[in-house]
Amino acid sequence: MQHLGTRPVTVATTTFGGGRFQVIAGPCSVETEAQFTETARQVHRSGATLLRGGIYKLRTDPKSFQGLGLEALSFVARTAREVGLPLVTEVTDPRQIEALHAHVDLFQVGTRNMHNYDLLKELGRTRKPVLIKRGLAALVDEWLLAARYVTDGGNTNVILCERGIRSFEKITRNTLDLAAVAYAKQHSEFPVIVDPSHATGVRDLVGPMALAAIAAGADGLLIETHPDPAHALSDGPQALTFADFDLLMGRIREVCAFFGKPMATGAQS
Amino acid sequence: MQHLGTRPVTVATTTFGGGRFQVIAGPCSVETEAQFTETARQVHRSGATLLRGGIYKLRTDPKSFQGLGLEALSFVARTAREVGLPLVTEVTDPRQIEALHAHVDLFQVGTRNMHNYDLLKELGRTRKPVLIKRGLAALVDEWLLAARYVTDGGNTNVILCERGIRSFEKITRNTLDLAAVAYAKQHSEFPVIVDPSHATGVRDLVGPMALAAIAAGADGLLIETHPDPAHALSDGPQALTFADFDLLMGRIREVCAFFGKPMATGAQS
Amino acid sequence: MQHLGTRPVTVATTTFGGGRFQVIAGPCSVETEAQFTETARQVHRSGATLLRGGIYKLRTDPKSFQGLGLEALSFVARTAREVGLPLVTEVTDPRQIEALHAHVDLFQVGTRNMHNYDLLKELGRTRKPVLIKRGLAALVDEWLLAARYVTDGGNTNVILCERGIRSFEKITRNTLDLAAVAYAKQHSEFPVIVDPSHATGVRDLVGPMALAAIAAGADGLLIETHPDPAHALSDGPQALTFADFDLLMGRIREVCAFFGKPMATGAQS
Amino acid sequence: MQHLGTRPVTVATTTFGGGRFQVIAGPCSVETEAQFTETARQVHRSGATLLRGGIYKLRTDPKSFQGLGLEALSFVARTAREVGLPLVTEVTDPRQIEALHAHVDLFQVGTRNMHNYDLLKELGRTRKPVLIKRGLAALVDEWLLAARYVTDGGNTNVILCERGIRSFEKITRNTLDLAAVAYAKQHSEFPVIVDPSHATGVRDLVGPMALAAIAAGADGLLIETHPDPAHALSDGPQALTFADFDLLMGRIREVCAFFGKPMATGAQS
Repeated sequence: MQHLGTRPVTVATTTFGGGRFQVIAGPCSVETEAQFTETARQVHRSGATLLRGGIYKLRTDPKSFQGLGLEALSFVARTAREVGLPLVTEVTDPRQIEALHAHVDLFQVGTRNMHNYDLLKELGRTRKPVLIKRGLAALVDEWLLAARYVTDGGNTNVILCERGIRSFEKITRNTLDLAAVAYAKQHSEFPVIVDPSHATGVRDLVGPMALAAIAAGADGLLIETHPDPAHALSDGPQALTFADFDLLMGRIREVCAFFGKPMATGAQS
Repeated sequence: MQHLGTRPVTVATTTFGGGRFQVIAGPCSVETEAQFTETARQVHRSGATLLRGGIYKLRTDPKSFQGLGLEALSFVARTAREVGLPLVTEVTDPRQIEALHAHVDLFQVGTRNMHNYDLLKELGRTRKPVLIKRGLAALVDEWLLAARYVTDGGNTNVILCERGIRSFEKITRNTLDLAAVAYAKQHSEFPVIVDPSHATGVRDLVGPMALAAIAAGADGLLIETHPDPAHALSDGPQALTFADFDLLMGRIREVCAFFGKPMATGAQS
Repeated sequence: MQHLGTRPVTVATTTFGGGRFQVIAGPCSVETEAQFTETARQVHRSGATLLRGGIYKLRTDPKSFQGLGLEALSFVARTAREVGLPLVTEVTDPRQIEALHAHVDLFQVGTRNMHNYDLLKELGRTRKPVLIKRGLAALVDEWLLAARYVTDGGNTNVILCERGIRSFEKITRNTLDLAAVAYAKQHSEFPVIVDPSHATGVRDLVGPMALAAIAAGADGLLIETHPDPAHALSDGPQALTFADFDLLMGRIREVCAFFGKPMATGAQS
Repeated sequence: MQHLGTRPVTVATTTFGGGRFQVIAGPCSVETEAQFTETARQVHRSGATLLRGGIYKLRTDPKSFQGLGLEALSFVARTAREVGLPLVTEVTDPRQIEALHAHVDLFQVGTRNMHNYDLLKELGRTRKPVLIKRGLAALVDEWLLAARYVTDGGNTNVILCERGIRSFEKITRNTLDLAAVAYAKQHSEFPVIVDPSHATGVRDLVGPMALAAIAAGADGLLIETHPDPAHALSDGPQALTFADFDLLMGRIREVCAFFGKPMATGAQS
């Protein structure tokens, strides 16, 4: 099969898959306005190029924190504007799209919703970019087909995100499958990014896997940071402190430049 | 932990988990009125106690047959009434619930939607019984927590369905995990049934796994049948012909009687 | 492919795959003469038809108990003779075969050695029956090919044993794959037995999975028992007490009779 | 836990884990003297630092090519001396150690033998370096414990090799687990290398995964090459041609220099 290369996807003022490396950063979930604002400023200062701010969370246990919901949308969107970074937010139900549409720059479909084809079809009817995380146990071919549910609706602005798959191994939360990244780059037109935070679930492994992802050909990263990981309401063990994130960003900048895909410039603030 | 036994769930005129064995049968998807009517009559004649008739299908490939949708609902519901069997239908989007509610006796949440918590919460707001299939790669504990999304809404009418998990093995489509059935019976109050058709994906293995499921303590089975499996629009290789289904039903009747859980009587027609 | 049925394998005075059900029982490892003798008498009394007595153990951790080794062979063999049950012993190195040959009735190749083809070839040069456990992560086709390493040497006395495979699930130690049992019965000439103790690693699941194995078509079971599971040197959590084993044997006897494969008679002592 | 860093392991004239990057290259199995000699010269010319030459092969199917065995040892060892590269050979049975000992510089224990503790113990009695490939379905903790079987015998010259694990994914032969590499570097004293050829089984993925392994912190690579991959007796689809290998070596040299671990110098011939 002839491969025609990656088709760039523009998200607000920046572009995935067009030769510049992207780093989406932010908390796993928005907990309070103070936590989010502080995180937004810090990740912007360290050079992140997009801001993650999830107001809906899919949690395995109904008793776990489920996200702040719509009430947080206004301050989340305002904070993103203030720091000047495009906003990435998870959407978990087709009925949320309308309210989120005006405020969000990149819709994220989480790993548990990769097979939620009704949601994907609905996102295909918008023209807003969609980031599709690979399902917990999705074959690479199923992941590529999930993207078709969006593109078949006319929305070709799809970005893929590898975030680890379920295996028998227990030291990591999931097993990061970087061969899937290289394969998806070779066999589809979509930009592909990697989430080393969810893939490993282990803070000390986030850095090495971020660099390995760049070497494997990824177009970007999605990294969790938190002002106080020990007290995060979700996924604390994998979140980086701001100091660690800043250090890692310096190294990412060097490594992606070496691999010929220099970091995109963040917001002009 | 003290175990208080299974809490029976009534579906229309019959009951799961109350000491009588249930067999839900029908096609993987409703293709035409003729196919569905013939299947309904045949499975009823062979002693099935509920009728499966899916009008929405979650398919990995957007180019695969996606189900007939709402237009099929009237003849599907009419056929179920005519043969006198309760109707089981998959729901794939919270927005379908309203239209289906009056016609369906048991809502099925498919394996790809086990983590679709918005759908589960919405079903928790109804009082209609819900059958939750285990996710492709769901831990048993995650499956039990998915049920809580429904019961926390006040709807305690939940039935669980084991349908195989993803593993490295390739002779079967999935790996049937019967220990999960015994565990769920021991650690939750929900009736548990087994789908040997999707679990194996291999016609010759459906019978042995159906009997093994009874021995493992299951409260029922979900079995696919098709008038002409070779030409089915989905999952042909695992569907039983009517003759094979009839033969298997005879054996199931003997085995579940032996294990002290005699088959429920089907409809009075 | 035409299937010609199971070819019976005779082990000392009894036969696997010839229409009678077999139960191999005993400790995971022989710890002391007293423990082994007591176990042998008890499992014989409860109706076990072969005695398991491993003197070599493959343990993941070099600091774990590794088995008593050759020094235990004389009392192990004597005990088996005294209770009148054929002896099953694991062999972990081709150099052990010579010393064990005169005392052992059935060589067991453990899950970690299924791919040890040098060991299998060496066992193919004997005419002693060989029980091959499925590898931790072996495809069914690889398991059947492992048997060919023995039969190609001229030793057709091979019995297969399913003992669970590695998956992401955590409530059980392994995932018991009963579809593999039905498949191996349909696609090979070998008798197939099941080890529900190692497959689940959970005492409460051993009984239900033993019965399910019978319903799936297994020719026998391998069950761990221990006088004092809480103090066993290996695999305590899955070992049955004598009282539980006795109860389970009564139920196994009924179930295998119902399925047309009555229990073999144990030793005449 | 305090981590004291990697302890270097010297193999003949070169050292793993001491700050220089190593590349072991050669055919999956030695087929003929001509094939091996040509491969040895080519990989040496391209800068490989050790030569792989397996004369024993563990093959799933007894009818597959099993390696040339001892008869090939003399020309294999002579070729390695001629090109001046240390020789790496797989050992599959403890009884082979004596004959191989004088000719081999690094014993390789294959993935199917990682749990063959009798073989590991025997290698622990030598002082020859041992390369332990991770088992098909081995937990990282089991892999580290396998190394203890060698070191407990007094032989601390152990090198670990990640080569992919079994998962449900099908586009690659195995799933390369680079997080395991970073973890093993952080939690053990052993040098760790990566085999991207077996891990992926796909020629086009070998290069990207080789570079990702360097970024993840690996101390070396094991890469398969073949004069004519289309006609290789084993694992052709993953073997690189000499031209591709040469190209990849140039890139590896740049990448490992960038990451501060410059390539070891090969033999002086």
